[in-house]
Amino acid sequence: MPAPPPVAPESVRTVGLVGTGVIGRGWAVHFLREGYDVVAYDPGAEAERRLRDLVEDAWPAMRRLGLAAGASPDRLTVAGSLSDAVSGVDFVQESTPEVLDAKIRLLAEIDEAAAAGVVVASSTSGFAMTDMQVACRTPERFAVGHPFNPPYLIPVVEVVGGKATAAATVDWLDRFYSVAGKVSLRMERELPGFIGNRLQDAMWREALHMVAAGEATVEQIDASIAYGPGLRWALMGPCLTFHLAGGPGGMSHMLDHFGPALLEPWTRLVAPELTGELRDRMVRGCEAEAAGRTVGELERERDGFLVELLLLLDRHAAQYGQRLPVGPDA
Amino acid sequence: MPAPPPVAPESVRTVGLVGTGVIGRGWAVHFLREGYDVVAYDPGAEAERRLRDLVEDAWPAMRRLGLAAGASPDRLTVAGSLSDAVSGVDFVQESTPEVLDAKIRLLAEIDEAAAAGVVVASSTSGFAMTDMQVACRTPERFAVGHPFNPPYLIPVVEVVGGKATAAATVDWLDRFYSVAGKVSLRMERELPGFIGNRLQDAMWREALHMVAAGEATVEQIDASIAYGPGLRWALMGPCLTFHLAGGPGGMSHMLDHFGPALLEPWTRLVAPELTGELRDRMVRGCEAEAAGRTVGELERERDGFLVELLLLLDRHAAQYGQRLPVGPDA
Repeated sequence: MPAPPPVAPESVRTVGLVGTGVIGRGWAVHFLREGYDVVAYDPGAEAERRLRDLVEDAWPAMRRLGLAAGASPDRLTVAGSLSDAVSGVDFVQESTPEVLDAKIRLLAEIDEAAAAGVVVASSTSGFAMTDMQVACRTPERFAVGHPFNPPYLIPVVEVVGGKATAAATVDWLDRFYSVAGKVSLRMERELPGFIGNRLQDAMWREALHMVAAGEATVEQIDASIAYGPGLRWALMGPCLTFHLAGGPGGMSHMLDHFGPALLEPWTRLVAPELTGELRDRMVRGCEAEAAGRTVGELERERDGFLVELLLLLDRHAAQYGQRLPVGPDA
Repeated sequence: MPAPPPVAPESVRTVGLVGTGVIGRGWAVHFLREGYDVVAYDPGAEAERRLRDLVEDAWPAMRRLGLAAGASPDRLTVAGSLSDAVSGVDFVQESTPEVLDAKIRLLAEIDEAAAAGVVVASSTSGFAMTDMQVACRTPERFAVGHPFNPPYLIPVVEVVGGKATAAATVDWLDRFYSVAGKVSLRMERELPGFIGNRLQDAMWREALHMVAAGEATVEQIDASIAYGPGLRWALMGPCLTFHLAGGPGGMSHMLDHFGPALLEPWTRLVAPELTGELRDRMVRGCEAEAAGRTVGELERERDGFLVELLLLLDRHAAQYGQRLPVGPDA
C-alpha cells in the first residue's frame, strides 16, 4: 500500500518549488497570493533576484485580484538546496527545463528528499509522467500539474497521472489545485501535449508553416487571432464558439453546414523543419511587433490587461453564472 | 481598363447586403452602427424578422460601444429582390451559404445588377475569389472580405482578391473597411482558409480528432482554452504570446528552448471522418455546456461579454498604445 498523502488538500500550508524560471516563479506569485508559505530552490545564478523581482512586480496585480488572508511576499523563502526546499513542505511543484533525462533524475532526487506521501507535481508542458517517474522509489505520489503562463493569472492546470501514479494522488492534486485557486482540468488518460497544448500546438505549427512558406507574417497571424477569434475564445473556447456559429440550430447545424469544409485544404499539419531562416523570421516578426518594448514591458502590458480581463470575467459570472462546466464535478 | 470604383471609400453612404443569415445580419448591425444606409436582401421566409430582431437586440450594445453620427436602425431597408438590394448602393457585401456553385451564380447576378465599378466583397469563410468570380463579366471588382462572427463585435476582416481582381479593388476594400470601423487584414496572396480560419481550423481539427478518439471531451477542450491560452490570445495572438514564454530572451530563446518539442507528437492533423457518432458527441457536449440555455441566451451572454472586453481593450490601448501592428499601414 502506498502511503496516503500526509496532509489533506485543504490543510496544505507550505509549498516547495523546484525550479524558478518563468513558470516556477509564476507559481511562487500564485501560491503567495493564496496565502501559502513558499520555499523555492533554483541553482541558477540570477534565479533568486528574478524570483524576488517578479514577486514584487506582480504583487499590485495580485492585490487588485484579491489576496487570501495572511498572504504576503514575506512568506517566500529561498532554499540553499533541493533537499531544503522539499523536505519540510506539504506539496512540491517541479518546474525545471524540458529535458526528459534531467526530469527523470530530478524527480528521483525529490523523491528521496520529500516526506513520505507528499504529492509532487511536475509543470512539464508535454512529457508523460509515465516516462518521468521511472527512477522514483515511490512513483505513486508523482503527477503532472501543467499550468499556462503566467500561472498567477491563467487559471487552468492540467492534471494527469502516469502508469505508476496512485489514483489517490490524482484525486488529491485535483482537489488541492481547486482549493489553491486554480481551475483544475483533470484528464482520465495520458496524452502527449495534454489538452490545451495539443490545441495550441496545432495552431502554432500551422502558424510556423505559414511563416516558413511565406504565406503570412507573424504580424498577420497575431492580428488575425487577437482582433479575431481570440476575443471569442477567452469566453467560450473553440467548441461552444462554433456552437453559436450555426445560428439557432447550434452545433448540429454548424456541423451539417460546414462539415464538407473539413475536406478543404484549410490547414495542414506536419511540423516544419525549424530552419535558421524560419527561426529568424519568427524572431524578427516579434521584434517588429514589440516595436522597441522589452519583454518586461510587454509582460506588464499583458498582465495589466489580464487582471482587467479576469475582473471582467468575474463580473460576467456574477451576472450570468458560470460560463462553462469545469471538469466532471461542475 | 476596368472602371474605377465610382465612390471613394470615405464617401460610401449606402451598403447593399446579399444574404442575411448569421453573418449577413451581423454585417447589417455593424454598418448601421457606423452610420450607413443598409439595403438587405435574403429570399428566406424568416430572414427579415431575424434581421430586424438582431438589429433591435444588438442596438444597446452598439450604443454602449458608441454610434457614428446619424446611426440609426431606421436606416435599414429590406429589399424585395437582389437587384433592388445592389443596384443603387455604393458597396456590396455578399454573405450567402458556403456552396461554391451557388456563389458563382450569385456573384454573376450581382455583377449584372450593381452599378459599374462598385466593389463587391464576399464573406466566404474559405473559398478563393479566383474560383468564385469565374462567371462574372467584370470580375475585377470582386474580392473576399472575410469577417468573424459576430461581425459587429469581432474587428478583423481578411481582405484578398482573386486572379481576376484589380489591385485597385483590393486597395479600395482595404481602405473602406478601415474607414468603416473594421480591422482590415490584407493578404498578399490567396490561401485556402485565409489566415485566421487556417489557424482556428488547425485547432478545431485537433479538437475533433481528440473527441473522436475519446482523448478529451468538448467540455475539457473548451475549458482548456477559455480558462487557459484563450485569455492570452485575446490580447496578443499566438506568436507574441510565445515571445513572452521564453523570459527576457523572447522568441529566440523560446524557439531554441522548445524547438525540439516540435518533434514531439503533441498534435496531429489530418481531418477526421465526420461520423455520426463524432457529430453526436460534439452536439451533446455543447448541449451539456449550454445547460439549458438557448443559443439566443448564449449569444446575449457572449455579446455582453464582448462589449465589455472591447471596452477593456480600448482602456488598455489608451494606457499602453496599440497592442499589435495591423497590416503594412500600421
